Amino acid sequence: MTIKDKERLDDLGIAGYEIIQNPDAFCFGIDAVLLSEFVKIKEGQKILDLGTGTGILPILLAAKTKAAHITGLDIQEYSVDMATRSVLHNGLSDRIDIVKGDIKEASGLFGKEAFDAITCNPPYMIDDHGLKNPADCKAIARHEILCTFDDIAREAAALLKQSGNFYLVHRPFRLVEILNTLTKYKIEPKIIRFVYPFVDKEPNMVLICGKKGAKSRVTIEKPLIVYEKPGIYTKEVASIYNP
Amino acid sequence: MTIKDKERLDDLGIAGYEIIQNPDAFCFGIDAVLLSEFVKIKEGQKILDLGTGTGILPILLAAKTKAAHITGLDIQEYSVDMATRSVLHNGLSDRIDIVKGDIKEASGLFGKEAFDAITCNPPYMIDDHGLKNPADCKAIARHEILCTFDDIAREAAALLKQSGNFYLVHRPFRLVEILNTLTKYKIEPKIIRFVYPFVDKEPNMVLICGKKGAKSRVTIEKPLIVYEKPGIYTKEVASIYNP
Repeated sequence: MTIKDKERLDDLGIAGYEIIQNPDAFCFGIDAVLLSEFVKIKEGQKILDLGTGTGILPILLAAKTKAAHITGLDIQEYSVDMATRSVLHNGLSDRIDIVKGDIKEASGLFGKEAFDAITCNPPYMIDDHGLKNPADCKAIARHEILCTFDDIAREAAALLKQSGNFYLVHRPFRLVEILNTLTKYKIEPKIIRFVYPFVDKEPNMVLICGKKGAKSRVTIEKPLIVYEKPGIYTKEVASIYNP
Repeated sequence: MTIKDKERLDDLGIAGYEIIQNPDAFCFGIDAVLLSEFVKIKEGQKILDLGTGTGILPILLAAKTKAAHITGLDIQEYSVDMATRSVLHNGLSDRIDIVKGDIKEASGLFGKEAFDAITCNPPYMIDDHGLKNPADCKAIARHEILCTFDDIAREAAALLKQSGNFYLVHRPFRLVEILNTLTKYKIEPKIIRFVYPFVDKEPNMVLICGKKGAKSRVTIEKPLIVYEKPGIYTKEVASIYNP
């Protein structure tokens, strides 16, 4: 396995898996880790991760679930290359495929109703400032330059089997728009969990599970609080990082 | 002032105000108290409380804000009678009117764009069981027998001035439907706060502020946690009850 210039190999602390990352391009964050823990997968299911980046979600889900197969889709050549090397390095080529392609055309690529579950850690920021270099890896991962949340929800709805689940993490300030968009595409939000950095602060992430074709009734889960005090994780988050 | 059979007079712990309640009909709960604290009113504004019940919200808002005038609307004759007596008892007849009428026809009754802010502690339960006595005061206050949330949002949108705020408290399990309905009527949800009974439990209430005609961007506030341990309020809630 090749580690390229500026890349590093990080221990994931689970199943002995490691991941290749490049701090100049992008590194996974706590959002991906919390999303991987939020996801509920049954044995034998097929999962698709939209905008997989380093491949962090497929690799964590391979460790944490009995999914039969996980596909990671990304539009960036370098992400696909790096994630593919991480999959190979962990001996996961039989369970994970990394595919280069555009989220906006994903249902054409994989076919309709092809997956039991879809995960997505999408770009959080609305692309309304025009300040980014459109070829910049970090900008594409963080801003809606190449696809919008509407594109993602539309494709997820087409790709999911009936009653399949769509799991995502996003920023709370976009909650209303996200819930409206999901219901527009008949993915009914069923479980929402807010991630509060501290017990007395506003949440900075929200985890959402929507079910295709379900009735309207949502469970808001207990708060997920990250830090007990500055630098010290709560028991819950510590146990996610060190299972 | 007359206190009728089975009624009692309760101290509100603010401004020396008291309220008449009848445990056989309905008593206000912590939801009304938390909603009164969540509401932000500027000096001189006109407020309407939809489904005012005992008149708890108009009386608390008279104590907590510099609103010029507050109207409480209720469809039940007995509520109107009881709330009117509480208003008189507290010497608030110059600032509060209690009006008998149907929420579904409220914009016809008061005229369009007549209020700066609207408050509502609506029936929480969807009326889909057919088990209630339709003349039962408690059933009407708790179940959507005489109006739905759609009716309330539609009338609130018509009654509010442009950029006016609609404040409500509801059950989290209906969050998605509520947010969708508010945006349908161009009341954009701007502030949401979840009320968790304990820090490690699911929320059982949600406070929402929507602004008529605003752009989509919502702030989820820090968690409002009610109990430190069983029977002991957190500092925040204790200070709301004993300001």
